[in-house]
Amino acid sequence: MRKVAIVGTGHTDFLSDAPKTEIEMFCEAGTEAMQEASVVPKDIQALFCGNVFGDFSEGQGMIQSYIANELGCHHVPATRFEGACASATLAIRDAFMWVASGFYDVVLVGGTEKATAMGTPLATRTFAMGSDGKYEFPAGITFPGFFALLANLYSVTYDVPMERLREQMSMISVQSHFYGTKNPHAQFKHKEITMDQVSKGFMVASPLRLLDCCPFSDGAAALVLASEEKAKQLTDKPVYITGIGQASSPKLSVQAPYLPRIRARELSVKQAYDMAGLGPEDIDLCELHDCFSIASIIAAENLGFAENGKGGELWEKGETKIGGKIPINISGGLKAKGHPIGATGASQTCEVVRQLRGDMAAEGRQVEGAKTGLVDTLGGDGIISNLILQTGV
Amino acid sequence: MRKVAIVGTGHTDFLSDAPKTEIEMFCEAGTEAMQEASVVPKDIQALFCGNVFGDFSEGQGMIQSYIANELGCHHVPATRFEGACASATLAIRDAFMWVASGFYDVVLVGGTEKATAMGTPLATRTFAMGSDGKYEFPAGITFPGFFALLANLYSVTYDVPMERLREQMSMISVQSHFYGTKNPHAQFKHKEITMDQVSKGFMVASPLRLLDCCPFSDGAAALVLASEEKAKQLTDKPVYITGIGQASSPKLSVQAPYLPRIRARELSVKQAYDMAGLGPEDIDLCELHDCFSIASIIAAENLGFAENGKGGELWEKGETKIGGKIPINISGGLKAKGHPIGATGASQTCEVVRQLRGDMAAEGRQVEGAKTGLVDTLGGDGIISNLILQTGV
Repeated sequence: MRKVAIVGTGHTDFLSDAPKTEIEMFCEAGTEAMQEASVVPKDIQALFCGNVFGDFSEGQGMIQSYIANELGCHHVPATRFEGACASATLAIRDAFMWVASGFYDVVLVGGTEKATAMGTPLATRTFAMGSDGKYEFPAGITFPGFFALLANLYSVTYDVPMERLREQMSMISVQSHFYGTKNPHAQFKHKEITMDQVSKGFMVASPLRLLDCCPFSDGAAALVLASEEKAKQLTDKPVYITGIGQASSPKLSVQAPYLPRIRARELSVKQAYDMAGLGPEDIDLCELHDCFSIASIIAAENLGFAENGKGGELWEKGETKIGGKIPINISGGLKAKGHPIGATGASQTCEVVRQLRGDMAAEGRQVEGAKTGLVDTLGGDGIISNLILQTGV
Repeated sequence: MRKVAIVGTGHTDFLSDAPKTEIEMFCEAGTEAMQEASVVPKDIQALFCGNVFGDFSEGQGMIQSYIANELGCHHVPATRFEGACASATLAIRDAFMWVASGFYDVVLVGGTEKATAMGTPLATRTFAMGSDGKYEFPAGITFPGFFALLANLYSVTYDVPMERLREQMSMISVQSHFYGTKNPHAQFKHKEITMDQVSKGFMVASPLRLLDCCPFSDGAAALVLASEEKAKQLTDKPVYITGIGQASSPKLSVQAPYLPRIRARELSVKQAYDMAGLGPEDIDLCELHDCFSIASIIAAENLGFAENGKGGELWEKGETKIGGKIPINISGGLKAKGHPIGATGASQTCEVVRQLRGDMAAEGRQVEGAKTGLVDTLGGDGIISNLILQTGV
């Protein structure tokens, strides 16, 4: 298979109450990505789109067809991917294959989502469709509930006292908001927070408080992927996708014996590491799926950055900051940057690409010398997809 | 790229008010496909699933993850495709690429949908999410309305008097119901109809009457795809996917100057023909997207089986029956077999595979000597995907 590079990135502001439709937001991000890649719409041979609930939020199914044609990519094959919050990462992994196989040379991939207009109660119910709809949702499993259960289980399983876990979770949210203030696209770009604000906030699902939870968000992100040969013509800073992984989970009750470890993530990231010939020690920065603060701790362990039960120590020791052992979510993460679910994987990938190209100095949040990055996206309870991105290879 | 074969097929009964969930129906079809292919769940390396509105009909998003794990394909990468009624064909085309590229050897692909429990008014509104949601749906564009407009435009554009078009459309529905009575999985397997019943039926959207319209349906279909090497170990009747095509359309109002021709179909099928090195004259049978009787006429023209304005003559002359020049929808088509939208492309493909293997003699509807078949699926207004299937190559 051929090498595949990311040669252009686009990212809208992540907002509450965005004035644009999902189609318009994708077109904004897609146009930016094409401009950055120095390609025009007629160069795009296929479009891959992550979108979760466009039908619910805007009455628009089959959104990809309209996006392609609004963008000026007339009549191209356009495919929508839905894997809850992992939708855009599934789209990128799939787009990778169509270029790697030699079938296409230049494609556009991204995601878009508009969730805030629904309001929190309806959005919470709608998002819960990413859990088992027949047995588990009726029992009360929305995602704040799921991750609250995981937090309690984590504390008991690894003998991390809840007071300490509370402290770790607060550090995670504080760090994310700190870096979020440096990201001009972040939903909370103006909101730095304190440990106290997190630990004394409104209780959502014990032990998770308001600032342990990512927001509902509107936004889009997009990428241009190209074959190695084409990439070298288009840019002197190609970022290659050198590892891909994806795995799925059964319903939550069936996962119970393995939790709080998420088996699908362990399997998915191993696929990506093996394909790239790398391990967690080779990763210079990571954007991981911090839908809730506890999710960051579990993800860091599943991805191999810490032993089970020790993930929170990464934040305690400052290892997740710029300059630390493994900078995590220097974008602000889902927590502060925002989480427009169908766009999130594309946003994470966009962020890692810009870091690897050294673009982030201007925003005061560059991970110096970073050459290898990891993307981690969790859909529902769930689907996992991972991407390893490398420059200079 | 490697050759890719279909080595197993599975198909549930298509029903109104199916007693099973979408997950259960996919598992029924998937299990049949695996048994036919002599593979077991642990042989399946990835799952690809078409599903349009599981979130609306059952409150279940991200359905593919639960399907994979209910089937016993634990933790495999599982991806959902939504392209309205073309969803399963997009899934098959995509699964093809993952095997053709050499990444996987054996995968499971299919589709599932449960629409009837919504009732006709809500289903009609929900299905209309496959049209433009911002400008055109509010103007009244549901799919019966869209195809009624096309029928009127067709009559005027090609100077086919409405009386004659009415007669042609009735012949199409009568033929579909005739073959549907021979298909044990068909929703209307017990219902043969007459010309009079079609032409005097309840008016839905002029000139389309009730029996010009396919039903709402529940059901699933699935296929096992394998690399050539693996296929030869598994079966002595591999059916190869030798051509694939996919294209998209802008919103209806933008398509207007080209209608009633559907440009996306002309582009998609050309991709498939070119890839297979074939033309319409080489096709021994076709399953095309007859969501409404007029849609069959237009599809037959777009696919190259008749000149524009002459598609209906194929049915007038009996050329679409077994023994005719181009047997069309010998399954009963969407009209009589049923149209569980997320499953339809997999059902059409299943039908063509079984014809090419010569399995249909038992049902009294074998196209003798058929070696090459065409699948045509239209999503919304729309997305088109085509597959060319061949045996003995």
